[in-house]
Amino acid sequence: MSGAGAGMDLVAIGVVESTLTDPADAPKQGFEGGPDAWLALDPGVAEGLDGMVPGDAVIVVTWLHRARRDVLRVHPRDDLSNPQRGVFTTRSADRPNPIGLHRVEVAAIDGTRVRVRGLEAVDGTPVVDLKPVLRRR
Amino acid sequence: MSGAGAGMDLVAIGVVESTLTDPADAPKQGFEGGPDAWLALDPGVAEGLDGMVPGDAVIVVTWLHRARRDVLRVHPRDDLSNPQRGVFTTRSADRPNPIGLHRVEVAAIDGTRVRVRGLEAVDGTPVVDLKPVLRRR
Repeated sequence: MSGAGAGMDLVAIGVVESTLTDPADAPKQGFEGGPDAWLALDPGVAEGLDGMVPGDAVIVVTWLHRARRDVLRVHPRDDLSNPQRGVFTTRSADRPNPIGLHRVEVAAIDGTRVRVRGLEAVDGTPVVDLKPVLRRR
Repeated sequence: MSGAGAGMDLVAIGVVESTLTDPADAPKQGFEGGPDAWLALDPGVAEGLDGMVPGDAVIVVTWLHRARRDVLRVHPRDDLSNPQRGVFTTRSADRPNPIGLHRVEVAAIDGTRVRVRGLEAVDGTPVVDLKPVLRRR
């Protein structure tokens, strides 16, 4: 790996609270039926939510803490009948930097707790960023 | 910040090679006119590219190494006439974890060098992940 990454340490801004606890039960993608879940954000980042409202389309960026970082090829969708491919052509959690991107809709906001629809990340997953979905003009 | 983030250290898988060198010259979003650029990936992750072909729509995940991490509110698009908003409702580079998401199209692949169209990241930006754009079914 390149040495250009000095100091690229992520901090958790919060954590996923979900009824999903076993990664084996999690859908591969949120639009395949992830449950509603809470993002319990750290009070220290409360200001960062200013302006967010229910109905917003948001990309939740997570750290997939159970993933393996030494994997470069996988069978897509964990199906052994699919030929192996490079992880950068798949959404596998196993990859050098196990960052998860989850497109969700904000259902409610209660202080620094954000309720979202359709999140496939398991309970306890660290949240590292939230970004608005961009609409191309 | 939460202590849940122990061990969330990113490694650079490569670096952006671009004619864009000054962030002040960079468009706010790639679809606003970012130039074509090279992603010079580390030979150690070559296998991860297996199956990628020109024409693929890819999300390049970067570490915006020039950003400030202590900013929670910004004037959107750096326009002081826009009221301040929380960074999680904007694509500001300044945010607790300065992760950049850039949707691009693969133009060519030469070994572990990937040519992409429309990347607004500046020269020298560390690349931390590549993911396919998902097509919802």
